[in-house]
Amino acid sequence: MSEFHKKAEECSMWTKEAGYLIEKARALGIPLAWDRLEKQSPQCNVCEMGLSCAKCVMGPCRIIPGLDRDKGVCGAGADLTVARNFGRFVAGGSASHSDHGRDLVEVLWEIGEGKTEAYQIKDEEKLRRLAEELGTDSKGDTKTVAKGLAERLGADFSSFGPGLAFLARLPKKRLELWDKLGIRPRGIDREPVEMLHRTHMGVDCDPVSLCLAAARVSLSDGWGGSMCGTEVSDIIFGTPKPNKTTVNLGVLKKDHVNILVHGHSPVVSEMVLLAAKDPSILKAAADLGAKGINVCGLCCTGNELLMRQGIPLAGNHMMTELTMVTGAVDAIIADYQCIMPALVDVAQCFHTKFISTSDKGHFPGAERFHFTPHNAKALAEEAVMIAVRAFGNRDQSKVDIPVEPVSMLSGFSNEAVLGALGGTPGPLLDAIKAGSVRGAVGIVGCNNPKLRQDECHVTLAKELIKKDILVLVTGCATGAMGKAGLLLPEAAELAGAGLAGVCKALGVPPVLHVGSCVDNSRIIHLCAVLANALGVDVDQLPVAASAPEWYSEKAAAIGLYAVATGITTHLGLPPMILGSPAITKLALEGLNQVLGAAFIVERDPVKAAQLLDKHITSKRLALGLSAGNGKEAAA
Amino acid sequence: MSEFHKKAEECSMWTKEAGYLIEKARALGIPLAWDRLEKQSPQCNVCEMGLSCAKCVMGPCRIIPGLDRDKGVCGAGADLTVARNFGRFVAGGSASHSDHGRDLVEVLWEIGEGKTEAYQIKDEEKLRRLAEELGTDSKGDTKTVAKGLAERLGADFSSFGPGLAFLARLPKKRLELWDKLGIRPRGIDREPVEMLHRTHMGVDCDPVSLCLAAARVSLSDGWGGSMCGTEVSDIIFGTPKPNKTTVNLGVLKKDHVNILVHGHSPVVSEMVLLAAKDPSILKAAADLGAKGINVCGLCCTGNELLMRQGIPLAGNHMMTELTMVTGAVDAIIADYQCIMPALVDVAQCFHTKFISTSDKGHFPGAERFHFTPHNAKALAEEAVMIAVRAFGNRDQSKVDIPVEPVSMLSGFSNEAVLGALGGTPGPLLDAIKAGSVRGAVGIVGCNNPKLRQDECHVTLAKELIKKDILVLVTGCATGAMGKAGLLLPEAAELAGAGLAGVCKALGVPPVLHVGSCVDNSRIIHLCAVLANALGVDVDQLPVAASAPEWYSEKAAAIGLYAVATGITTHLGLPPMILGSPAITKLALEGLNQVLGAAFIVERDPVKAAQLLDKHITSKRLALGLSAGNGKEAAA
Repeated sequence: MSEFHKKAEECSMWTKEAGYLIEKARALGIPLAWDRLEKQSPQCNVCEMGLSCAKCVMGPCRIIPGLDRDKGVCGAGADLTVARNFGRFVAGGSASHSDHGRDLVEVLWEIGEGKTEAYQIKDEEKLRRLAEELGTDSKGDTKTVAKGLAERLGADFSSFGPGLAFLARLPKKRLELWDKLGIRPRGIDREPVEMLHRTHMGVDCDPVSLCLAAARVSLSDGWGGSMCGTEVSDIIFGTPKPNKTTVNLGVLKKDHVNILVHGHSPVVSEMVLLAAKDPSILKAAADLGAKGINVCGLCCTGNELLMRQGIPLAGNHMMTELTMVTGAVDAIIADYQCIMPALVDVAQCFHTKFISTSDKGHFPGAERFHFTPHNAKALAEEAVMIAVRAFGNRDQSKVDIPVEPVSMLSGFSNEAVLGALGGTPGPLLDAIKAGSVRGAVGIVGCNNPKLRQDECHVTLAKELIKKDILVLVTGCATGAMGKAGLLLPEAAELAGAGLAGVCKALGVPPVLHVGSCVDNSRIIHLCAVLANALGVDVDQLPVAASAPEWYSEKAAAIGLYAVATGITTHLGLPPMILGSPAITKLALEGLNQVLGAAFIVERDPVKAAQLLDKHITSKRLALGLSAGNGKEAAA
Repeated sequence: MSEFHKKAEECSMWTKEAGYLIEKARALGIPLAWDRLEKQSPQCNVCEMGLSCAKCVMGPCRIIPGLDRDKGVCGAGADLTVARNFGRFVAGGSASHSDHGRDLVEVLWEIGEGKTEAYQIKDEEKLRRLAEELGTDSKGDTKTVAKGLAERLGADFSSFGPGLAFLARLPKKRLELWDKLGIRPRGIDREPVEMLHRTHMGVDCDPVSLCLAAARVSLSDGWGGSMCGTEVSDIIFGTPKPNKTTVNLGVLKKDHVNILVHGHSPVVSEMVLLAAKDPSILKAAADLGAKGINVCGLCCTGNELLMRQGIPLAGNHMMTELTMVTGAVDAIIADYQCIMPALVDVAQCFHTKFISTSDKGHFPGAERFHFTPHNAKALAEEAVMIAVRAFGNRDQSKVDIPVEPVSMLSGFSNEAVLGALGGTPGPLLDAIKAGSVRGAVGIVGCNNPKLRQDECHVTLAKELIKKDILVLVTGCATGAMGKAGLLLPEAAELAGAGLAGVCKALGVPPVLHVGSCVDNSRIIHLCAVLANALGVDVDQLPVAASAPEWYSEKAAAIGLYAVATGITTHLGLPPMILGSPAITKLALEGLNQVLGAAFIVERDPVKAAQLLDKHITSKRLALGLSAGNGKEAAA
């Protein structure tokens, strides 16, 4: 056992491979997120409680009730300050997803206009199906249909449009509830903009009103921007089908050019993948001694390629810095979101080239490309060639890949799941009614250096499947589940008898990978399909969501749109709202009365699983179903 | 001299009438903004420097270079953290203006659709002129023209629209510069949303790129949302013409029902004004002993009514709490923006009713109305009746209005100014060329309790007009100028000989009131008209802007769109950017190279006037004009 391995063993905060590389980085004097967190600790308690405000220069103010600082200069107290901050936090997350969705709609429009050669329609059936669903021309030639659909979805971004197209997927009861509460989202861009307005000094001064408005913002993400992102990505790049691939740092290959695509959009990474198959580029790589070009994914760009193309996943959020410490990464090609600025610093300690591709995401010190649908092919080839040349500079003696790849299944789009069930949700509903599948929980979201990496994800999933609760996984939770072997059909052995039986019959894992962060829209869509099939509202379903290791504003938006859709959601860490007992109580309890769902905050994944199980049991009983899993007595 | 007067005399931070009422409030135990500022002091230095980040729950982080906290958990350093915060600050301000503009476009659309009786087109000539300018139907019947124009402006809020309509007003050179820099705004809502995205962890990590993006956001306000707000308000409520009115707390009348309209939109306040003229409501007031109903303005809703209807202005931002301490305010009817939440608390210490009217701005403890174009008339009547009944509860023995009203001229829209000059900017340009008007400065923005109220505004204006620099004023600066008598033709006596001569010839004051905060769009529009007439870019004009006492995110957006348009802008207080010497240097110097304009930060108004004078002199000389005012030698 190496020195790095020994030290890593001693630290309970890291997975083994992370711990090994962290110790190696420390030996090399390279600071990482964990080190920066340590230096930032103790973190500002006032900010953490949501009680700081720097939204005007009468301030900044710190609201510290009891210390004669109970009001800001404008008169805002703790509840209002927390609500303003939370509203902007959710708006930041929603805007990020929605701006991503916009990019996909733009590419679809460019295809429709015949303005791009690089991108084409891969799933014409889905294109026409969606056009029919949304009432645009579904019969014309492909470009016409694409343009019509792009224009309809584009109108969702306007505040003077016909209203969000995908809301028609929801149960009528849910829409009526949103109308009653005034939270039906009106425009994908309008809602975050209005939230910025509401949280300006002297606009919305009612904490409850702000929280409801935050819910509306989040719904413009879930049923708007994110859903556009998912659906249009499927149309352009193909709707995912079950595929076998690998996960873990071990997907890096010592004898290949290793390119990691990082960020969230498939728009650039799909082109990188194509370029990596270009014979002349492969030849250039071979000339430098490489056996091939190995494109692997990080974060959600990784999930996008994993779902559709079976590209291996090298790691999730907290692994991004560490990948480079292997010495085997020749280039990171990054678009946007969750790309730690520190990555450029780490890259500079190795031979790794860091390439940014989005006009929205510049990184000082990076090779800077600005991809558009017009130049995408050429720029992707150029970016891959940078990686090939970097391989030429790689010092193989320093390459150090401490783990082997783990197999996994991916590609469980709703189309794939329902297809496997014969095209209708009936068999799944039957299994739920029978109690063999007692319910479902979507485990989503990030890593956070405040928590032992991946452990909350994996422990929670294991506890849930044991209780016959099917798990759907997206985003950075995927890497954790995959590494733990939970994304293989063999993991059915770890499930309760009911779920294990269903998984074995269908040959699927008890934890299904359904995509990236924006693909949480698949989960809420599936919930709406199930609710409609049962003739109930979403909040009546025996389902829940969980973000056990979240860190990002987007995760807060996802959590809130899940709750507003009627799906009770567990968070491993609280958002910065604890400075307002009233808002905290609203989040944990009050929302149940309003939306039929609320938040659960619990750091311990075993306890969280118990709470989610209790929730699912109560929903089953309310539907007149058995608790299942021998739980009748407990309920 | 009363005890309150004596105490007020001793404090150099307040105007006399403010000081009097502050002392009275203190005697009554009512805390005000100044007291809250004192309790908040010292304010958090890290937040004030722009070095705090609470945008994800790996944080919150405090970047304190030199104290081993030079990076946040994600790796963001001081420059990036400041840039992210500044980007969101500007987005908050831009979104507020633009969401206000949206409301006006919606009312115009409702008029066009024939869906509202309450609102009509007051300035049909401007409606048709704008329709012609923007290429929509200008010849049809009024409703058709209104609908077409509303739809065209509505498309500006979309990110898939034809592009911002009003950009065509700009000199071609300026648009080419924006294209070169990538900062031409694409959609009014898109830009703040993209800024939220860019400032999410791991998107735009380049401080300079973020600052340029912030400029683009601000331009979507100035040439988008704000300009829609101004132009459509003129069409619906009438384009302002010079009118004589009064200003100061003394506009309150002891023997009348006093209603203060507060906020920023004319949509509700114009209806309140109509309702206050309703014979049955006037009779109800008379029955309670009132001699009439006195509607006065606060803040920018006040400016809107002042410009168009000559309604007296009771006070600006720092006077809003104090108005109620007179005991004479029966109701405050507030829409949105800059309405301190503390106002409700102060109202509850008196008989004053606080009424909120916007669905976006709720105030716990207020009477809550939700005005729409459909119910506006009925609700306005109801709100005015609440004020009338409150008058019935007023204790006249406690009424205490410590000052007399001051006369002022208002209503100097661009149409009015150019109209007075015979319809062309020629005479103004001739005066500028001759040096009788050496240049112009727009003094705009708020009050801030950190500064002696109104003093910076007034001193700066006096210094500038002395130097033959015409002053245009908007927003809360208006109340300050008005109280100081600078908005009367007689103030020409205080101006230099050149400016005084022009003012006397035209019968106008040396400080022209051109509107509310959104009406700063009038100033940039006028600058574009002048630049086009001269065949130069805006940054070549001998003009500048100043926000000497600003507090709000909107003021930051205004300052930045002014600079991005080419107008050098003075700020009395710095934005929260000092934690980044690089960004501070960019703001104060670097932008000059990029945009031909930059920021000046100077607390002392006399020094600020010298700097602005120097700037104007240099622009005059560069145009081949004399420095003017005997400044040739100095230049």
